[in-house]
Order: sequence, then structure tokens, then C-alpha cells
Amino acid sequence: MSLSPEILTKLTQIVGENHIFSDIETRNNYGHDETEDYVFPPSVVVKPANAQEISAILKLANDFKIPTTPIGARTGLSGGALSIYQGIGLSMERLNKILEIDEQNLQVTVEPAVITQVLRETVAEKGLFYPVDPSSMGSCWIGGNIAENSGGARAVKYGVTKDYVLNLEVVLPNGEIIWTGANTLKNSTGYNLTQLMVGSEGTLGVITKAVLKLIPKNNYNVLLLVPFFKAHEACEAVSAIFRAGISPSALEFMERDAIDWTIQYVKGISVTVKPEHQAHLLIEVDGNYPDILMQEAERILAVVEQFEIDEVLFADTEKQKNALWKMRRAVGEAVKANSIYKEEDTVVPRYMLPELLNGIKRIGAKYGFKSVCYGHAGDGNLHVNIIKGDMTDDNWQTQVPVGIREIFELTVSMKGTLSGEHGIGFVQKNFMDIAFSKVHLELMERIKHVFDPNNILNPGKVFPDEL
Amino acid sequence: MSLSPEILTKLTQIVGENHIFSDIETRNNYGHDETEDYVFPPSVVVKPANAQEISAILKLANDFKIPTTPIGARTGLSGGALSIYQGIGLSMERLNKILEIDEQNLQVTVEPAVITQVLRETVAEKGLFYPVDPSSMGSCWIGGNIAENSGGARAVKYGVTKDYVLNLEVVLPNGEIIWTGANTLKNSTGYNLTQLMVGSEGTLGVITKAVLKLIPKNNYNVLLLVPFFKAHEACEAVSAIFRAGISPSALEFMERDAIDWTIQYVKGISVTVKPEHQAHLLIEVDGNYPDILMQEAERILAVVEQFEIDEVLFADTEKQKNALWKMRRAVGEAVKANSIYKEEDTVVPRYMLPELLNGIKRIGAKYGFKSVCYGHAGDGNLHVNIIKGDMTDDNWQTQVPVGIREIFELTVSMKGTLSGEHGIGFVQKNFMDIAFSKVHLELMERIKHVFDPNNILNPGKVFPDEL
Repeated sequence: MSLSPEILTKLTQIVGENHIFSDIETRNNYGHDETEDYVFPPSVVVKPANAQEISAILKLANDFKIPTTPIGARTGLSGGALSIYQGIGLSMERLNKILEIDEQNLQVTVEPAVITQVLRETVAEKGLFYPVDPSSMGSCWIGGNIAENSGGARAVKYGVTKDYVLNLEVVLPNGEIIWTGANTLKNSTGYNLTQLMVGSEGTLGVITKAVLKLIPKNNYNVLLLVPFFKAHEACEAVSAIFRAGISPSALEFMERDAIDWTIQYVKGISVTVKPEHQAHLLIEVDGNYPDILMQEAERILAVVEQFEIDEVLFADTEKQKNALWKMRRAVGEAVKANSIYKEEDTVVPRYMLPELLNGIKRIGAKYGFKSVCYGHAGDGNLHVNIIKGDMTDDNWQTQVPVGIREIFELTVSMKGTLSGEHGIGFVQKNFMDIAFSKVHLELMERIKHVFDPNNILNPGKVFPDEL
Repeated sequence: MSLSPEILTKLTQIVGENHIFSDIETRNNYGHDETEDYVFPPSVVVKPANAQEISAILKLANDFKIPTTPIGARTGLSGGALSIYQGIGLSMERLNKILEIDEQNLQVTVEPAVITQVLRETVAEKGLFYPVDPSSMGSCWIGGNIAENSGGARAVKYGVTKDYVLNLEVVLPNGEIIWTGANTLKNSTGYNLTQLMVGSEGTLGVITKAVLKLIPKNNYNVLLLVPFFKAHEACEAVSAIFRAGISPSALEFMERDAIDWTIQYVKGISVTVKPEHQAHLLIEVDGNYPDILMQEAERILAVVEQFEIDEVLFADTEKQKNALWKMRRAVGEAVKANSIYKEEDTVVPRYMLPELLNGIKRIGAKYGFKSVCYGHAGDGNLHVNIIKGDMTDDNWQTQVPVGIREIFELTVSMKGTLSGEHGIGFVQKNFMDIAFSKVHLELMERIKHVFDPNNILNPGKVFPDEL
């Protein structure tokens, strides 16, 4: 759709002429995120300064029924920020301040366009810890993290984004501004709209401020890289570690190809992967007492040594630890640089991981695709990268979606679900029938209608095309 | 309302003649909870065996627009289980089984009428920990805990009920049965109906199964009772402990009267309270390493010694610890046995506690009421018991509600809210306008309408009489 001069004039009046862009380069820039190679440019990009301007924009969009898509750092992996029906691209980039670090109450109030790593580092200077660390934390924004309920490596011990969101300022699609809750650790006052908003992928309202819980910072950690000769044994070791009563602060799984390709992609990583290593676990424990951490590391060793493993790399310098984490965080990018791909974000109860991995390989063999798996194994969250490699375009278009549907059916049969931390967005919406009954989806759609009766806010996301 | 013979016959067909009760004694029994002296008997009490029977009951109630109130252990403190419009009293008592303890994934699947303490003890036998411990845990049920998003003493370290609910089987008011989520630690798949259901006080659906997260059990703890000469200093010490980087597993505040009355009420508690002790903090740290706990206890001592305190009681035997916890858990009952009372469940960011306490006393003086305060200070959650004492009935009826409104206005002005863990239910609903704008309340009411268009399920709760 192209917007009328009248609408463009009104938008310009709201945000000012320096903050509205109709040129094709800007529109293309704001028309993609990190989801495969999709590009859906909005008709116009606006960059409001604050909640009041966003309120005015949404009132206008609501009056004229203009699709409006909130756009964050564009690091998303499910296409949640794509303007698939064009309309207004609502870039949040100017709402980028850390408004208050409340050291008395261990809380921080932020605007949505604060980079997650900047938030972490800024509160760390005060001895405080915001634990949620998506792999993209160097570039993703806290607003997008809230919209997608992002996780990350430390979720296994510290929880995901939803566990840190106390209160949200939200502009509703009709332009009204509300705070969803209170700045308290406990709350039994009315329906939990805060948690309804977290993970709603920008379809219910636009988040303009967030009050987040912080915790005291831990001072020490120990990191182990364990090479396994059998991939399914690496998966089995994951739940064995928890059953031994250990709560690691990270427990990451990487198939051999994931590490191989990453070592080629990122220069200067001094990890040796032998051809017979089928998978690695990256295991971290953290705390305030180094002696205790060493005891825990030894207990972990005792567990993993019950499996067929090679020599464990024990990272005890900051340099070694940073190198290993850099490698782990680059896996996604490295795998994607290697081939055309599709990424799924499966999640199951963690004990089911070996069976999930076997099932994915079996389904891949059936439909002729290769997959590279890695992810947050401690949470049962396995990222499945389906690699095009030398598959024909025809098979890629026809066979792979059938195989993905089977993978999701397997996931749901294990009491898991479609997405652990990336969201449904645009790319997974037509698989929603696997996880939810028609009754359930209609309930969600009617909640959407309560917030957004004209379906102007991020339309075409989360819900399947045919319900 | 009295139900027609036709309806009673249909209900009897659903639950069987042994599980339906119309006698006045049973109806009265199921017409109260622990909220002041309110009694609202349902027209009939039914005791279904399972979700299918509940589905049939709700279909019937929906067809004939019969108010239907889910009834749990009747330990609630906001009147959530009262059948204020009569109709069907839906006792959940026969759904009382722990269905599965999944030691591989650290999860438990329970029916709603499992006593919270039974759940805790049963999983503890497997070395697992369900940390949520409302003071009524010896009699309350997990279903009610979920409905009210209950907290308890350990919430300060381990979180509240919502933090342990992974997935819920819910019968919707139209009789449809859904699972709200998946049995996974992470989930970014559609709107979070699980968290919308938690704390919705039985107004959106009837919970028939819950999958809860468990964690490994800690083996050691240390408990301190610290007497303060100034109540506001006890409150100040609370946030000072957290700012020192310590995360206690419990941090409870009790005004002198709370302890005095409890010692009189519960026999055989060997705690000495001097007249000059204005308040006590009960502080626990837990973990797996006794030496570390002693270090933490010493760090806590160093913090509290900066205030005017008397000799600290260091409980190091199970017997002493149990006696102190028994005392703390009996405070509510003891205070209530002492006088006609009203209880508020205020919650604020924890650093605001001293100001909240001062404000409550100031408002009490203004309106002529005495209050006894105690609660989960680590969470900023202060239970305010307003004591009738020798106040005239007239003042009790007219002045106290005005004073309560002022207390809640103060709470909300501190970015706190009306209820930390007891819920709004029947008794606080007409204060909801203090915490929420009309826009916000209408949003909640429209969500209620999505689930329950005929307003049959627990009507007259949560929402103010006039919106």
C-alpha cells in the first residue's frame, strides 16, 4: 500500500520532518531482520521520540486502518519486525536511554532501544546483574527481547526475559498509554498484563518503558568444554548433570559441524576439534566462592566421565573464557554463512533431547536434508539449522516444509513446543496448529482483538493464515 | 437464586448422587473462606471427579447462565471462593492427586486439590524442592495458590507460584478443555495464557492439572531472629541486606504486637520479647555448603548491627528453627483471634517499606484505628491488619474504609500495588480504581469477556462494582 499525502503530512507533523523516511534505501534497511533473506519494506519509516508521539501515530493508524509494525534492532530470527503488509514502520531507535538504575530496590527502568549488552555492562558497574544474554546481545535491544521473550545461555540458571520484567509502559493500538503492573517483586492484583505483553511479538501494544528486576552480581565462574564421541551421549549428559543436583549457569550443546564451521568463520579460536568428536558441551558454573565452584566443576567432571568423552578443556583465564563464548555466540552466524538455511527453535523437556536429536536426523534422512543442531541444552532448547547445501531448489521448496512440520510434530509429542526463545513471528505462524487446538488459537485471536480491534499492529504475525 | 429441579437433576447425572449437596450445613461450610467473617453459601455444592465432569457442569452453567464459583481449600484471604451470587459451588476436592513426579526433567504434574505442604514433602523425598510456602501451606491447595499467585516466606529468593507454573490444563467456561502451554522451561510460542491464568482468581477458567517446575533441594539453612528497638530501622535493614549482596532465602518482618499476640496464642514458644523491642526480622539463608552459610550469616549480622538491635537469636537446631517458623506462620491467625480485623496485603518496592510503615501508622492515627503489621519484607510485601479493638461499629464501618483507601493510594504512589499474594477477590475489588485506569480495567474486563462471555465463572470478583 502507498500512504496518502494527507497521512504522510500528519506523520511528519507528529515526528518532525527529520524523523520520517520514504526513500527506498531506508525502507529496505528497515524491511529485514536476521530471518533468512526476507525483505518486506514498510511504506514509510518513522522514528518517534517518545510514547506520546507513538500514541499519536497509533491513533492515526487506527483511524485510517494502516498496518503498523514496531521495528527494533532487526536481529530477530522469526521475522517479527517485517512490514509484511507495508504501512508504517515504527522504528523505536530514539527511545534508547537507561532512565534509572535503582540501587535501593535492585531495579532498572529502560527504554526499548537500549542494547542488551549495554544494559548488562551499565548495571554491572554498580555491582548488579541483568542475567539475560541472547547470543545477539551485542546488537539486540531490550524491547525486542521483551517482545520475543528472549532467552540465552544463562537462562538455564537465571531464567528468561519474562522472569525479569516487573512492569511495562505500553502504548495500546488505540493510542492509550498504560503501565501494565507495579514495580514490585510480587503482584496478585488483577490479570497479569505484564506477562501477556512479554512474548506477544509487538502484536498487542508498543513497549515504551520497562522496569526490570536486577540481582546482585556473581563474581566468579568456571567454564568447561567437553568433547563427546557420540552426540546423543552429550544430550544424555545434560539431564544427568541436573539430576546430580548441580545447577550450571550455562549448559550449551554444539554438534561437530557447528563448531567446525565456526572455527573456520571466526579467526583465531584455539579449539581443536577432532573428526571423531561428534558434539561438545560448554558448561559454566558461577557463584561467589571459587572453592565451591571448583568442587562443582569436579562433580560435573564425574558425571560427564560416565560417557565416552575426550579431554576436557578447562578455561580458567578470562581470555580463554571469552574465546569460548565468542565461538559459541558466533555459531548461528557461522552456520548461516555456510549455506542457505532455515532455522527452527525447538524446545522440549530437557531429558527428551537425545530422542529429539535422533528424530531430527531421521526426518532429515527421510526428506533428504542435512541439519546442524546447537543450542541451550540445559533448557531443552535446540536450534535446528536445516542446510540447503546441494539440495535442489524444488526439494528445498517442497520437501523441507513437510520435514519441518514433522520435526514440530515430534517436538509437541514430547510435550515441547515450536519456539523456546525466537518467537513465531512470520516464519513459524503456519505451524501453530501443531501446538494449539482451534479453540486455543481462537482464544488468542480474541485477545488480540481486545487490544487491537482493527488489526493494525504488526498484522500477519503469530496467527496462522487460516484459522 | 434457587436452582430448578431440572438443573439439579442434570448436575446429579454429571457428578453422581453422592457428590451433590443441597443441605444448608454443607452449603454454609462451602460458603466461607478465611476472609474476615463473610459467608456466601452456594445454592448447591457439587464435587466433580475430573475435568470431563467439570466440563459438563460448566457447559450446563453456561447454557443456563448459572453463577459458578470454584472452591478450593477455603484458606483464601480475599474472598475469592465465596459464592456471592449463589449458584453452583464447584468444590475441587476430589481432584487431589500428585499424578507424576518427573525426576528426569525436574517437574511434577498435580491436580489442584493437593495440599501445598504435601506436595513439598512428597517431592522432597526424591531430593527435589517446590519452594513456594504460603503461611497456610499445611492446609491450602496448589490450585488456590495458582489462582491467587500465592507467595510465602521463600519467595524472596525462589519466587512466587507463577515462577513455577509451566503448563496448565484448564476447563474454559464454555466447557472446552485446553492445555495453556508446554512442559518446557522456555516458551516463545503464542500469547502466554499460562501466566494469564495464574492469579486470575478462578475468573477465566477452572484449573484441573498443573505442571510445575521443581529444583534440586538445598540441604542446609541458618535462621536468625533479630530484635530491633525501632520498627522503621528493621524496615531499613531489609534493603540494606540486599544491597550488601546477600540473597536471603527468607526475610520476614513482625511488629511487636504480632509476636506478642502470637506467643500468647501459640503455646510453648521460647522467644522473649522485651517491651522495648518494636519489631523483629526473621532472616534465613540456605544452600548446600554450611561454611558458606555461616559466612553469610556473619555478613548479615554486620549489616543489622549498624542499627539499634538487641541480642540476636541464632537458631541452629531443627527444633529451634521449627519453633520460630511455627510462630511466624501463626501470626496471621493470632492477630485475627485477638479482635475483629481487616487485612490488607500491600506491596511496594522493598526500599519503600519504612515510609510505608510510617504512612500506615499516620493514616491509622488520623482515622482512629490501630494496625499490626508483619509480612514478607524482603519482597516489600507488608500485611496490614487493621484492628477493631474498642472502635465503635459506626467508625469501623465509615472511617476504616476511607483509611484503607488512603493506605492503598500511598502504596500505589510508591509504585506498589494493592495485593502482593492474597489477590483482590471480593474484599478489595472496589479499590481497583486506585491501581488501574478505566482504560486498563476495561481491557481486563474485555479479556474476561473473551473467556467468559456470560460471566458465569466466579462473578463479582476482581472487578469493581462500577467500572
